[in-house]
Amino acid sequence: MRILRVAMAQMNPTVGDIAGNSRAIKRWIKEARKAKADVVAFPELAVTGYPPEDLLLKPRFVADNLRALDDIAKACIGVLAVVGHVGQGPAANGTFRQSVVAAGQHELTNAAALIGERGVLCRYSKWLLPNYGVFDESRYFHPGRTLPIITLRGATVGLTVCEDIWFPDGPTRLQAAAGADVIININASPFQIGKSRIREQMLATRARENGVIVTYTNTVGGQDELVFDGNSLVLDQTGAVVARAKSFQEDFLVADLNVDAVARHRMVQRRTKALSAKQAGAVERMTVRLPAAPKRTFVVSALEPLWDELDEVYAALVLGVRDYVRKNGFKKAVIGLSGGIDSAITAAIAVDALGADNVLGLFMPSPYTSQESGEDVAELARRLGIACDTIAITAMFDVYRHALSTAFAGRPVDVTEENLQARIRGNLLMAYSNKFGHLVLTTGNKSEMSVGYATLYGDMAGGFAVIKDVPKTMVYELSHLRNAAGKSPVIPKRVLDRAPTAELRPNQKDEDSLPPYPVLDPILKAYVEEDRSLEEIVAMGFDRAVAARVIGLVDRSEYKRRQAPIGIKITHRAFGKDRRMPITSGYRIS
Amino acid sequence: MRILRVAMAQMNPTVGDIAGNSRAIKRWIKEARKAKADVVAFPELAVTGYPPEDLLLKPRFVADNLRALDDIAKACIGVLAVVGHVGQGPAANGTFRQSVVAAGQHELTNAAALIGERGVLCRYSKWLLPNYGVFDESRYFHPGRTLPIITLRGATVGLTVCEDIWFPDGPTRLQAAAGADVIININASPFQIGKSRIREQMLATRARENGVIVTYTNTVGGQDELVFDGNSLVLDQTGAVVARAKSFQEDFLVADLNVDAVARHRMVQRRTKALSAKQAGAVERMTVRLPAAPKRTFVVSALEPLWDELDEVYAALVLGVRDYVRKNGFKKAVIGLSGGIDSAITAAIAVDALGADNVLGLFMPSPYTSQESGEDVAELARRLGIACDTIAITAMFDVYRHALSTAFAGRPVDVTEENLQARIRGNLLMAYSNKFGHLVLTTGNKSEMSVGYATLYGDMAGGFAVIKDVPKTMVYELSHLRNAAGKSPVIPKRVLDRAPTAELRPNQKDEDSLPPYPVLDPILKAYVEEDRSLEEIVAMGFDRAVAARVIGLVDRSEYKRRQAPIGIKITHRAFGKDRRMPITSGYRIS
Repeated sequence: MRILRVAMAQMNPTVGDIAGNSRAIKRWIKEARKAKADVVAFPELAVTGYPPEDLLLKPRFVADNLRALDDIAKACIGVLAVVGHVGQGPAANGTFRQSVVAAGQHELTNAAALIGERGVLCRYSKWLLPNYGVFDESRYFHPGRTLPIITLRGATVGLTVCEDIWFPDGPTRLQAAAGADVIININASPFQIGKSRIREQMLATRARENGVIVTYTNTVGGQDELVFDGNSLVLDQTGAVVARAKSFQEDFLVADLNVDAVARHRMVQRRTKALSAKQAGAVERMTVRLPAAPKRTFVVSALEPLWDELDEVYAALVLGVRDYVRKNGFKKAVIGLSGGIDSAITAAIAVDALGADNVLGLFMPSPYTSQESGEDVAELARRLGIACDTIAITAMFDVYRHALSTAFAGRPVDVTEENLQARIRGNLLMAYSNKFGHLVLTTGNKSEMSVGYATLYGDMAGGFAVIKDVPKTMVYELSHLRNAAGKSPVIPKRVLDRAPTAELRPNQKDEDSLPPYPVLDPILKAYVEEDRSLEEIVAMGFDRAVAARVIGLVDRSEYKRRQAPIGIKITHRAFGKDRRMPITSGYRIS
Repeated sequence: MRILRVAMAQMNPTVGDIAGNSRAIKRWIKEARKAKADVVAFPELAVTGYPPEDLLLKPRFVADNLRALDDIAKACIGVLAVVGHVGQGPAANGTFRQSVVAAGQHELTNAAALIGERGVLCRYSKWLLPNYGVFDESRYFHPGRTLPIITLRGATVGLTVCEDIWFPDGPTRLQAAAGADVIININASPFQIGKSRIREQMLATRARENGVIVTYTNTVGGQDELVFDGNSLVLDQTGAVVARAKSFQEDFLVADLNVDAVARHRMVQRRTKALSAKQAGAVERMTVRLPAAPKRTFVVSALEPLWDELDEVYAALVLGVRDYVRKNGFKKAVIGLSGGIDSAITAAIAVDALGADNVLGLFMPSPYTSQESGEDVAELARRLGIACDTIAITAMFDVYRHALSTAFAGRPVDVTEENLQARIRGNLLMAYSNKFGHLVLTTGNKSEMSVGYATLYGDMAGGFAVIKDVPKTMVYELSHLRNAAGKSPVIPKRVLDRAPTAELRPNQKDEDSLPPYPVLDPILKAYVEEDRSLEEIVAMGFDRAVAARVIGLVDRSEYKRRQAPIGIKITHRAFGKDRRMPITSGYRIS
């Protein structure tokens, strides 16, 4: 029986940290050797991390990344590695004997190198470069045009990178037609709600329709706005998931791929079109000779469960915070606690990410702060086991108002004074950050950010926006989830029950300024995430005046969001990287 | 003699304002009719403004833009118009009888429509879509694949859009080979230092090498980070500039193109390769019948001078501020005046953009503010003729320190206290903005933004960053320029002479924290604008330790720049749209 043992290192690289990422790769290669694997796959751009963005414009960075491959090769004793990295040189040329190509060949590619002890054996360059949503690959990379097909321990193997496998008529079909039994696909596929299931459906279809085994190695970890969920997979030639790695943590998956079963399946029912002459011209065949397979017994691969959607979201937020804090060299976070649910869930996430000892709350009451808020903050801090300081803002608010009294004489009190309170709080949080080196986590949710119900330099001040892509209605869901998860609820019941309020003037309620969240959130989803027009939103059953008002608020608050700290993305269209709107805009709803 | 009279409307659209842009287009069409022009050209994406970014993802927006063409057509009585707009439908299909194509054809193109009284006569879709620097066109548009060639009053005319003309082997060469005498090229080409000259060199070369007349119609005006400089041109078949529109303002240029001269030139010396069969297949020929030409005498076209580089920069900053303020519905601006040169030049620019009555200064002294600063602010305000309020920040600074004294007990005074002062000032400016509706203009220059020598939510707080792409050394040059321009200098001599200081602690000088600006600025240019490595910068003659320190400061302050307000771009690589760096990065100089 022909068996190919493939290991998959679901690793957590840091963008730009070529040395650190290479060390991790070499460590996993050793693991693979211990596991008697024939080949170990690493994620897309594992050497540089994903997405390297404009670091790619630095020639030195690309050169360092290529040199790292030579170093990685030295670890490949008795095992091959498929390593995502930045290729350089003519994209058409898949096979290299040297990893550093001649000078003067500046085309960059998003590449997978097959590496043996003596260096890079061959290189596949990604054909299909995503340039939508959070992806900007056309800015940097040239598409590949060759298709290496590698014979390895009797198995015929094709390599692809991420997007390549999403298209039915992409390289996978050609590789299958060229005889591939196994597709080693490497990825940096960011999390978004619902994607883990869609991805499995797609991979099952792709494996089945091509009659090939697919190994899907994904990245894991937080990188600025993105969180990669892991969930690496092996699917057999019938589309069945035969191995699945963990969600939201590093993992190492080993699978024995039964190549004979593929051959049998192919003879019975594989439907592949023959290659055209031009397509056949792209194929580059090579055979890699490995020493005789060591004695090994068939491994039973891990088959971790897929998680529920809300569990995934919570885990994404925790991992996003943990990695942003850690990878940027912070240890502790400070959070303004108001007694409201947004800061409560943010604190719970931070505690789960960093540990209670590394989270500090700061309660900053004003005369408009209710007694309940103070009690709830204290109770939350007690339950979470975090320290919490209290600094009243009244004295500062008074002295600002006094200083401005001449200039503002005769003008009514308005949003200016509300913003001042929020900005005093922002200043205090930043002072804590500057003095102690803690990262400020902001607590604004997607609903309020969308309509601009937030103060620039006030509650928007901070280093990382934890729930900026989480609508208010989902903030409640996550809070209930978190409360049900522990031995006892961490978020006090009154926080969940009280009507949302900014407490910036007497008896203020969010609903004085905004539609109720169960109305607001679906309108925002339709307008922001789905780019629906007012007419379409009205046709969905929403009140025209309400919908028009919401749309106007979204359009007019773009300038605020542009200055918001970055934060974790959990939908296909968050404010940030993947939504590029002009600030200066005469666009009016119609 | 065959004469084609072409008018060029160098207009200032607002992104998204389809109704307003269409009105302007119709107004210019009337002008063109009065000028007895055969055809009038408008800039690239004149209907939507440039760049529309994610507004293009709204189907309603694209439909509105197409409907506008029908409306514009009604104005085309006796004159044709070439109008930049968003095309929809198969990019391969250049000729449409109807401007709104059948549903289900979702490909968008960056298109130039030739419009007559009865609607769109034909459409050219941009072939070459820039996707670098500030451009993201591959995210939105499909490339065109056809080449309409129009016969018009005996002249053979080709249409192209912007980037198309920058490539020697692009559509221009094919159009010339297909017989074009005249290329009507429409543009949204943003200003950057030195570009107006490079553009003319390129266009002269392109006209000469193809033996065609080129009309180059550019956009003018500010749009968020971008400023379009105008400088529309006509170049004859020898590459000579025969007409040039104004810099940095709307203009209307009329030129009589001598088509016979092109024919003569062609017979003598045009060097064009014949079209291949495939290329010829892209050509779509059509003839537009116009009424007999009205009686008209040969026009002498305007030939405005090109400006000196520094004059261009100053004008770009003025126009950028004026349009950002105006297009966003503001009228007045407020600026924190410190007595330093950055706020002085910002105020001068604001006064030139908005008028002295629309600029308010705010002086916010602390105990560290020198007497000279106060005197210089008063003198600057007097010379500029602007009002200036004074609010001391001492009381606020004291009350913050008192409020934080328990939490910070035993900790030494550090940058926290400096930032607090800057943030109090930011709060006061924002309070003015909120109360009076003025836009806050920030005063940080490129040198200090690059190394993070600025306070987030402090001096970085505001709506628009006027000089964020201007290095400190150029701030001085601009100040001298402005002082020499008026009847008497507006910036007091002492402001120009004093050593730069943030005045956030006693006797502080910028040079305590940073290398002298004449050393810092070229290192920043090499590292930020040219992506040079430390080794290359050392090889340029800079001290290794200094260069390494600067690079480290740049890399570590990315998180601050991400939260900076948008501002005017004058180089090919400003912080903002055209520099996409990860915040979380393990990249270390080596």
